[in-house]
Amino acid sequence: MKIISSANELKKYLREQNKSIGYVPTMGALHEGHISLIREARKNNALVVVSIFVNPTQFLAGEDLQKYPRRDEADKKICELAGVDIVFMPDTQALYFDDEVKIVAPNVRGYVLEGATRPGHFSGVLRVVMKLLNIVKPTHAYFGKKDAQQLNLIELMVKHYFLDVTIVPVDTVRDSDGLALSSRNVYLSKEERQEALKIPKSLYHASKMISNGIIATQEIEAEMLAILEPLEVGYVAIVNREFEVVKEVSVGNCIILVEALVGSTRLLDNIWL
Amino acid sequence: MKIISSANELKKYLREQNKSIGYVPTMGALHEGHISLIREARKNNALVVVSIFVNPTQFLAGEDLQKYPRRDEADKKICELAGVDIVFMPDTQALYFDDEVKIVAPNVRGYVLEGATRPGHFSGVLRVVMKLLNIVKPTHAYFGKKDAQQLNLIELMVKHYFLDVTIVPVDTVRDSDGLALSSRNVYLSKEERQEALKIPKSLYHASKMISNGIIATQEIEAEMLAILEPLEVGYVAIVNREFEVVKEVSVGNCIILVEALVGSTRLLDNIWL
Repeated sequence: MKIISSANELKKYLREQNKSIGYVPTMGALHEGHISLIREARKNNALVVVSIFVNPTQFLAGEDLQKYPRRDEADKKICELAGVDIVFMPDTQALYFDDEVKIVAPNVRGYVLEGATRPGHFSGVLRVVMKLLNIVKPTHAYFGKKDAQQLNLIELMVKHYFLDVTIVPVDTVRDSDGLALSSRNVYLSKEERQEALKIPKSLYHASKMISNGIIATQEIEAEMLAILEPLEVGYVAIVNREFEVVKEVSVGNCIILVEALVGSTRLLDNIWL
Repeated sequence: MKIISSANELKKYLREQNKSIGYVPTMGALHEGHISLIREARKNNALVVVSIFVNPTQFLAGEDLQKYPRRDEADKKICELAGVDIVFMPDTQALYFDDEVKIVAPNVRGYVLEGATRPGHFSGVLRVVMKLLNIVKPTHAYFGKKDAQQLNLIELMVKHYFLDVTIVPVDTVRDSDGLALSSRNVYLSKEERQEALKIPKSLYHASKMISNGIIATQEIEAEMLAILEPLEVGYVAIVNREFEVVKEVSVGNCIILVEALVGSTRLLDNIWL
């Protein structure tokens, strides 16, 4: 397994190889969710590239940029065991320049839901993803469905800017208790973790209501909010695959989303129906 | 010569060819300046692609988007005679989508000089150029030195987003009277055209002062402004090749810029020393 920190060195190496590339961009602190992305990449590409970069531009002032978990050595081991060919670990100076041309999230779709809670967050995500996709030039790039809105916006960016890459959404991986895996779960105390389980519970409950024929999203959201109490809920929303809020659930074209604060940790979860 | 209006058709065709591509993006109303870009492209690439697209996002409200000269049939003839292989003539719907991810010019370098006169203009330019470069994926892309700040910002975008293209600056072409060629020259009345000649005159004068050993930019700019009177001058500026305003001219690293209003037509010109 190669470890590369220079963008130009990585570009040069990959262009010389001239093989199909599966790419998994990450912020490190790798868990089973990332491993499942790597596994998907391994199936369908000659080369698998993982990047590990805690992207400063997607953190707002006062967010957890400084304390975001960093575990470079463990991450490299995990990549090696998962059959990764190249780990790209740039520092900030390798990716960012003074007084940059910027990428800005869409006016509407970039500033609702998670984009309303964290205004500017998605612009930072899109900015680094544009850079990374251009450096790696992958055949396929793998993103978790857990960050559903991020995934949707990246798909939009690929469309709007005619990028030659196939974005592959990968199912969320959950712990045995149902909590969606996230690098931020390490912030949770034992008690908070118990409280956090209300999030997947609310989603399973919504899914059950829908199986029972209830399609009015207002009704579903009200019962979800009751289950989530007393958590501070950022949003509960039901959208279609284009991320438009809908009034009635249409199975096969529906994502149910929750964002809630557990202690001081913001957690995201969703199910795709 | 092929005429293509669909972005996906062009992408597909060019990827199949798998040849070196020289690309000249234009807004049509082609003149000798464009032809010299095409000639440069013809020299060093197997395929030459010209795009003709009057990009709405780079016009500010109240600017000349509607009356911008359009001469599709003449332009196609000019391209054919100049040995162009493919003319890409998309309509707006082929390049733009609802609620888009946007490209925004740098905070400083995108909002000085021409960017101060036309705030937002360069964001529109960069946005369409990012799209076009991704569609065409040229080996070389050719831009006129006449739009010096645009050229500088495009070079920055290529660097910041790791695009695999070489940007080739091409010298400004002038009419026999010295006026830099521009599609907007057609707006000038006979009298205005005479007045407009003060622009290249001021630049030649500056160049002569510098040959005579004068390097204080303040002094040079003062004499240029005197020559330009009574035109309404947007700016006279002396910058280095990184587009930073300098106090002393350093030959080999200097661009002298003028923007002035002649009648109701804004004209740009510059010399590189």
